[in-house]
Amino acid sequence: ALVKGTQVAGVFTQSKTAAAPVHWCLKQVGRGRARALIVNAGNANAFTGKIGTAAVKAVVDAVGEKLSLSPNRVFSASTGVIGEPLPYDRIILKLDDLVHDLSEDAIEDAARAIMTTDTYAKGACAEVQIGTKTVRIAGIAKGSGMIAPDMATMLGYLFTDAKVPQPDLQFLLTEINQSTFNAISVDSDTSTSDTVLLAATGKSEVAVTKETEEFKEGLHFVMRELAHLVVRDGEGASKFVEIEIFGAQNDQDAKTHAFAIANSPLVKTALAGSDPNWGRIVMAIGKSGAVADRDRIKIWFGDILVAKDGFVAPSYTEKDGATYMQRAELKIKVDIGLGRGRFTAWTCDLTHRYVSINADYRS
Amino acid sequence: ALVKGTQVAGVFTQSKTAAAPVHWCLKQVGRGRARALIVNAGNANAFTGKIGTAAVKAVVDAVGEKLSLSPNRVFSASTGVIGEPLPYDRIILKLDDLVHDLSEDAIEDAARAIMTTDTYAKGACAEVQIGTKTVRIAGIAKGSGMIAPDMATMLGYLFTDAKVPQPDLQFLLTEINQSTFNAISVDSDTSTSDTVLLAATGKSEVAVTKETEEFKEGLHFVMRELAHLVVRDGEGASKFVEIEIFGAQNDQDAKTHAFAIANSPLVKTALAGSDPNWGRIVMAIGKSGAVADRDRIKIWFGDILVAKDGFVAPSYTEKDGATYMQRAELKIKVDIGLGRGRFTAWTCDLTHRYVSINADYRS
Repeated sequence: ALVKGTQVAGVFTQSKTAAAPVHWCLKQVGRGRARALIVNAGNANAFTGKIGTAAVKAVVDAVGEKLSLSPNRVFSASTGVIGEPLPYDRIILKLDDLVHDLSEDAIEDAARAIMTTDTYAKGACAEVQIGTKTVRIAGIAKGSGMIAPDMATMLGYLFTDAKVPQPDLQFLLTEINQSTFNAISVDSDTSTSDTVLLAATGKSEVAVTKETEEFKEGLHFVMRELAHLVVRDGEGASKFVEIEIFGAQNDQDAKTHAFAIANSPLVKTALAGSDPNWGRIVMAIGKSGAVADRDRIKIWFGDILVAKDGFVAPSYTEKDGATYMQRAELKIKVDIGLGRGRFTAWTCDLTHRYVSINADYRS
Repeated sequence: ALVKGTQVAGVFTQSKTAAAPVHWCLKQVGRGRARALIVNAGNANAFTGKIGTAAVKAVVDAVGEKLSLSPNRVFSASTGVIGEPLPYDRIILKLDDLVHDLSEDAIEDAARAIMTTDTYAKGACAEVQIGTKTVRIAGIAKGSGMIAPDMATMLGYLFTDAKVPQPDLQFLLTEINQSTFNAISVDSDTSTSDTVLLAATGKSEVAVTKETEEFKEGLHFVMRELAHLVVRDGEGASKFVEIEIFGAQNDQDAKTHAFAIANSPLVKTALAGSDPNWGRIVMAIGKSGAVADRDRIKIWFGDILVAKDGFVAPSYTEKDGATYMQRAELKIKVDIGLGRGRFTAWTCDLTHRYVSINADYRS
């Protein structure tokens, strides 16, 4: 539950088979006000037709009644298996307990409650000085599979006590989302439930707009931290990999190249095997569809120059590459050599554990 | 080696980091004549800069000299590791032996020689009646990883004794390629070396044009057989999966949906686990980018109706789905419910063995 007057902004999955609660939130977020969030894990209430829509309505109506709120101020999300009816009566039966347990300190419990294949609860926070005043930003997220733009998290909830007009709140969320939750990929698959909400209670009485740089930086920090936590907890992941592209013709091309590398099964299995197989990075750039010129590409592992001038770099040794690849945190840097476009993406490797987790998700 | 007067047509990788021999073939195929093919496995001669181009030239010059041919009639391909210089002197040293062993019956040896991670040699043939005459079509292919459009085979070589004008030959190859080699995917990664050549020797003296339906059918049969053999031998594959999309707004949308399903790691791992997780098919359609309406989609496993009207089909049982999924050959059929666009793609599952093969390819 959120204090009266809380402004809310949201970004959602682009999937054309989006889940029922996503449709509900999309409709309500336009009104700009939120007073309560209700989230369940285990069942996504996706591809559940009219029954799914009715289930969302039943849940938000019941929450509204318990808290004496308009149901239009209640935001809902569901995460889990697709295509099974949501047993919403079981949620409604629990509402008295949930209301009774509401607490200002329970954000970690909430982070834990929304987990599915996540192996740990994910949270981040920041305190931002604005003049002589302080505002706070806190967020939780869940997600470790079916993670790709847009958007790259299943669920994320961000809160601040700053006083932010709703249009500014939506602007900040949409903009920062591009370089955080929309810059990560675990498996190139996109969830039907992806939802990130940002709620501003205004309780600090500190006014913030979309021009307030300190707030923007704080929000960016919290969102990036959460995005990284999702990738680090990627299903079966053993490595955290930053992919920095620069020198592309434009930012969009840089993003296309970055995700071609981040999503390539052959790159990701090589990373899992600590194999410095830079040829597969060349392959991914070549197939991405964005502009590239073979002989202008430069590739680095961390600070090690691997390839340039259309060939392996004279200074590069396979031994240096192999040693670097043993690390748990890797950086792949590529200069496309054509312009000023840049994008940084984060991903993980593709391991036996990913196959094990997903070959057997429902059994 | 091919008889004098052989016409040739080719289709090649769309990769912007295409290998050196691809550039050579692209240049020569415009001349329309071929007399010899030389192919090596183990090294792709890709991302090898000017040294790579010189290596191709050295090889085709040497072959031309041995066979008293213009090097412009010699087509070359290389498959294997990317980014290492091709030790072309070792190929040239072997040329005397290769020329000595040339034989009309050695096509199976050739199919075997071009294998990399393939577990078996791939060949197919057809005899076509045209009026009272017979022409023959034979082909070989290799490829089992880094397989996606365009194009979906590493290397394919097709031969016919029909007499076909080169423009017609190129037309037929390009058209049939769309529904065969460009309709398969193992891992969504695109090779830098993909090459399919079709050579028509004219030895049968039977004239064929792009309108000769019998020939077209025969060629389609051979190319589809080879394409299926590549998928069946997909790295680590335990299942062969046909994905038939119809009712899309147009054929391009149907293809986009088909490959979104065929390339989804979550769909492919579910298939590996024999899990009838149809929710992931919904997810893949939703994320594909092509037009879809959740409530109009129908999904079948073989003849079993799984989902319709935005929900699971009333007649569907998880038990039926689970029993069907045990099969080694699966068919996923989807009616998008919007128009007349259709496309059929073939793929395989994503198994532990795929990870094992590719985490350790070079070591």
